[in-house]
Amino acid sequence: MCLINWYYKKVEGVRGLTVETRKPIPVKEAIRKVMKFAEIGSNEEVLLPDSYGRYLAEDLIASHDVPPFHKSPYDGFAIRAIDSKEASQLNEIEFKVIDEIGAGFVTTKKVGPFEAVRIMTGAQMPYECDAVVMLELTKEYERDGKKYMSIKRSFRSGDNVSFQGEDTKKGTPLVEKGTRINPGVQALLATFGYEKVRVSKKPLIGIFATGTELLEVNEPLVPGKIRNSNAYMVQGQVIRSGATFRYFGKLNDQLDECFEAIKNALDEVDILITTGGVSVGDYDYLPAIYERLGANVLFNKIGMRPGSVTTVAELNGKLLFGLSGNPSACYVGYELFVRPVVKTMLRSYTPYLQSVDAILEEDFPKPNPFTRFVRGAATFKEGHLVVKTSGLDKSNVVTSLSGANVLIVLPGGTRGFTKGDKVTILLLEEEQGTNTLWAEK
Amino acid sequence: MCLINWYYKKVEGVRGLTVETRKPIPVKEAIRKVMKFAEIGSNEEVLLPDSYGRYLAEDLIASHDVPPFHKSPYDGFAIRAIDSKEASQLNEIEFKVIDEIGAGFVTTKKVGPFEAVRIMTGAQMPYECDAVVMLELTKEYERDGKKYMSIKRSFRSGDNVSFQGEDTKKGTPLVEKGTRINPGVQALLATFGYEKVRVSKKPLIGIFATGTELLEVNEPLVPGKIRNSNAYMVQGQVIRSGATFRYFGKLNDQLDECFEAIKNALDEVDILITTGGVSVGDYDYLPAIYERLGANVLFNKIGMRPGSVTTVAELNGKLLFGLSGNPSACYVGYELFVRPVVKTMLRSYTPYLQSVDAILEEDFPKPNPFTRFVRGAATFKEGHLVVKTSGLDKSNVVTSLSGANVLIVLPGGTRGFTKGDKVTILLLEEEQGTNTLWAEK
Repeated sequence: MCLINWYYKKVEGVRGLTVETRKPIPVKEAIRKVMKFAEIGSNEEVLLPDSYGRYLAEDLIASHDVPPFHKSPYDGFAIRAIDSKEASQLNEIEFKVIDEIGAGFVTTKKVGPFEAVRIMTGAQMPYECDAVVMLELTKEYERDGKKYMSIKRSFRSGDNVSFQGEDTKKGTPLVEKGTRINPGVQALLATFGYEKVRVSKKPLIGIFATGTELLEVNEPLVPGKIRNSNAYMVQGQVIRSGATFRYFGKLNDQLDECFEAIKNALDEVDILITTGGVSVGDYDYLPAIYERLGANVLFNKIGMRPGSVTTVAELNGKLLFGLSGNPSACYVGYELFVRPVVKTMLRSYTPYLQSVDAILEEDFPKPNPFTRFVRGAATFKEGHLVVKTSGLDKSNVVTSLSGANVLIVLPGGTRGFTKGDKVTILLLEEEQGTNTLWAEK
Repeated sequence: MCLINWYYKKVEGVRGLTVETRKPIPVKEAIRKVMKFAEIGSNEEVLLPDSYGRYLAEDLIASHDVPPFHKSPYDGFAIRAIDSKEASQLNEIEFKVIDEIGAGFVTTKKVGPFEAVRIMTGAQMPYECDAVVMLELTKEYERDGKKYMSIKRSFRSGDNVSFQGEDTKKGTPLVEKGTRINPGVQALLATFGYEKVRVSKKPLIGIFATGTELLEVNEPLVPGKIRNSNAYMVQGQVIRSGATFRYFGKLNDQLDECFEAIKNALDEVDILITTGGVSVGDYDYLPAIYERLGANVLFNKIGMRPGSVTTVAELNGKLLFGLSGNPSACYVGYELFVRPVVKTMLRSYTPYLQSVDAILEEDFPKPNPFTRFVRGAATFKEGHLVVKTSGLDKSNVVTSLSGANVLIVLPGGTRGFTKGDKVTILLLEEEQGTNTLWAEK
């Protein structure tokens, strides 16, 4: 049985009588409904060199003092400060140099009165010494085959010594789990001996495209058809958000086959995304599949543009995102709804897109009956962020997405904006995120 | 022969007579000297799904119109607008529905006067039609087994039609080579049939650590030794900048062996980084190796803190970066000197760290005889960037690096800064970059 006819007939039967009317919910409420099902994912271990950009699955706590021993921050001589007490321009004090230690070595000698150890930057202080004299403040010489140095000023206990634990005391919490690992965190992990790092596993997101008009990227153009761009765009969004993907290709138009494909895919992935097929159009059959799966549809209409038909369903705690087939709507849908779920699975405490104020650099005269998310390009200007739309604001316009680094939020019920107005923008390329939804600030 | 003794003796011999004095050059000049050797790297092809985050090696030009045909943006009926001319509330006009086309299909029928085709969103317009009537403005019915619809208003030619090329005309340059591929660019690549994408090859950066005090990450702590954190930190920086790395481990203290190791590594990589071993300390032997290689040392002292001993040499056009062994200096050295070279190899036209103004949120009383780069954490506050130092400003403090997302630039010759002062910050996590060095703005 052909799905298209099947579903077409179903709709035909009701049109004019009880035409399916969907009730839009506010975008803030839609995000909240989705986030109720966002749960922390599982963990895995990776080698330290592979940990960049991953999310820490456990708190990083200093397992020893840093530095782990008193050490010399300079090239010079380690002495007992007390021996230098009488040193002055007029009273040169001589020290016998009894050893020489490089970084990584420890002296085996006991340092007595008026004895010194030649010490290199980073080397451990001899036990008896409590000050370092920098090389350039000493005079070195030999006498009877023995080495000496002398100084003309006094030093206090602690002078030029990096004390054990002065950077970090053992037990200090350093980096909270859920933090994205940057080069500085990698340095800390190395310092504390993490050859392997426990990180959040990347959520696996399944992607299906729907649309009888779609060609795959390797197929030549034919009349009436266009290439599938959404699936590849979403793949990039998945990676940008810290997850990984499996692309299942295009759903065909047989309901039974689609149902089986989606059902099987659900077993293999953490999140399932479909692009297209969620409108009330005659050929849009995702609603029928959600019904047959017994999935709980959280919403199927949102008071926003683009992406009003974005549909999210849940089955046994697993989320199915029915993103619009329209590229801009699909893009916005991913960033608003899927991204914070991914970040939560990764243990991030700041799952939402960072929202900041920016100055609009051009007029946007269209009224906004619903909250509008416009693709924008933001730049810095004298310490402020300024923003322009990144191309035509038509929801089918793919080109505007390539230059977008923010979404401009134009609240519903506003009449249009003019150059110089302050607007809220959501930063798409910023990794830090925030724990507060722009709408709840 | 033991290198340490060899080099130690060499230095011993001259100390007090012609102690090696290095002449610091301004940091801006140092960057300029390095960038003279920054050349565009080679290319490779990757599959579209693997292209996220890579850099386009060729301009992306629209290979066809977008949309590639006139299409309907709505579900409805395609008509000849002229037939609707007399339609009004009092004059309902009837159309015979002769076909039904979904997205991806084309009608084979010729549409005559007062005929219509049921058309779905995204479907190609029938050749004779020039307007679309939205479904909700029609009345549908059957008569004698034939389908009809009627309308009560007129439409003009072009109403509700997305015209071929209205988004993008064939031949339009869309994305410049050297652009980092984001999800929007991936959508464009898919639209134009790029199953494979020509991208800049990631530069391969070799990394050696030096330092007799260093343990590898998997070795237990022993007295006098610390774990090597720089190599792992730099690995993260390499990846963040868009390159890839090979870690060659720790150089030992045998000059001949070190020389061979570095010489062989140079043949395998595009850029070579060493951490440590560049000071004038007795155990620092990189200068001897540069000499033996016959490398051209561009500079070995910079008027900056931290990282004044950062040394860069060049051999047959290949750059050898001698970064400081001190973690913060090493970190700053990578971002200021290596990163823009990597970005240039990737074809980026904006190789430098984005520099913007920010308001200092705390006092920084230390005077700055030389330009200082302080690790900072910047956040947004009412559309402005505000910045704090991200920890102790001691160059050996690893913990301050993990929270850093910017470098605060405090120009040389300044007396210290107070809360509320405007400072320049360099954004470490921003991917866009700039073509203008902060110092030349």
